[in-house]
Amino acid sequence: MAEKIKNYSLEEILSMDKRFRASFINSLGGFKSVVLIGTQSKEGLTNLAVFNSIVHIGSTPPLIGFIVRPDSVERHTLDNILSTKYYTLNHLHQAIVEQAHQTSARYDRSISEFDAVGLTPAYKTGFFAPFVKEAKIQLGMELKEKIELEINGTILIIGEIKQASLPSKVIQNDGFVNLAAAGTIASSGLDSYHLTEQLKRFSYAKPDSPLNEIK
Amino acid sequence: MAEKIKNYSLEEILSMDKRFRASFINSLGGFKSVVLIGTQSKEGLTNLAVFNSIVHIGSTPPLIGFIVRPDSVERHTLDNILSTKYYTLNHLHQAIVEQAHQTSARYDRSISEFDAVGLTPAYKTGFFAPFVKEAKIQLGMELKEKIELEINGTILIIGEIKQASLPSKVIQNDGFVNLAAAGTIASSGLDSYHLTEQLKRFSYAKPDSPLNEIK
Repeated sequence: MAEKIKNYSLEEILSMDKRFRASFINSLGGFKSVVLIGTQSKEGLTNLAVFNSIVHIGSTPPLIGFIVRPDSVERHTLDNILSTKYYTLNHLHQAIVEQAHQTSARYDRSISEFDAVGLTPAYKTGFFAPFVKEAKIQLGMELKEKIELEINGTILIIGEIKQASLPSKVIQNDGFVNLAAAGTIASSGLDSYHLTEQLKRFSYAKPDSPLNEIK
Repeated sequence: MAEKIKNYSLEEILSMDKRFRASFINSLGGFKSVVLIGTQSKEGLTNLAVFNSIVHIGSTPPLIGFIVRPDSVERHTLDNILSTKYYTLNHLHQAIVEQAHQTSARYDRSISEFDAVGLTPAYKTGFFAPFVKEAKIQLGMELKEKIELEINGTILIIGEIKQASLPSKVIQNDGFVNLAAAGTIASSGLDSYHLTEQLKRFSYAKPDSPLNEIK
């Protein structure tokens, strides 16, 4: 028997309760990356916040973007990035997912979320922003571009990967990083965290050849 | 015993073999959404292409963005979106993941990837672009903003959700869509596809309250 399908028009979406809509629309784009962004103010106060609007921008140079809502709790992170230019992206794994989510609480600016949630800032030589010591995959980023999106006032922050640390065993011979083996968490909606299981890798597609599985 | 960690500097990243770097950097941002984008040219030729640089932009209005590399196979999709304003985002599930990946082959502009890979274009009343009939979650999008990213020449396309279709049973009471239950696939790197297993949903975080799990 066919599955029962529900259809929504834009008008129906706009008439939803605001919280319902936020959860619904945040879900519809599919699974998302989720990272902890570590920053430090010029005055030396650390900040840590969970973000799930991450997007790959390019490999040469290595660029990753993320979306910030300027009126939100994410504002402290944005301020630190704009004033210091440096930040870190730290993958989540199962043991730190609850602490990561807790960083989304509206802590006062004077409180470090590292302390509040029980994660450890780690510094690396020559890099201003704190990494999350407990994270297995850590990226040190430098701000490269800030773009205000006219359509809704959100901001796209693009940074360059200045350094990357990850477990040797998850790096494959062709450069692929086995995030499932690393235990990296995916997110969906506003508040859902997921483990993943690799289904398949496929070879580079060509019009007249069948795909092969990359083992 | 501690895991062996490998550190890469930007210089080391830039000196990698180009294909190795593409796979490596595409992996580092974490798990990604992956969708099939369906379009139709003004002349009526359909196009279908797999994209994994999707990003949530906002809920009110409901906006989703994606990144296009203008010199790539993705160009046909971009041309159709710019000339017609309409496109569809279609989630992948296990039964169509191989066909989805195959759409990334460099088919001639005169060939419809729907035909080439064996997926079915589906039209809905009043909507110009074709949906993927086999997809369980289907979004009809209207182009709202096109932003060229100076830093590497890629383009951010932002669209508004004009209509959404999904199985009733995966929509929860608070608006959350259970993508794991829907069988939606996540991606990583350039060519890896993943099933997910929901670990937990957490309640809205507050500074002085413990998190609860949302069942």
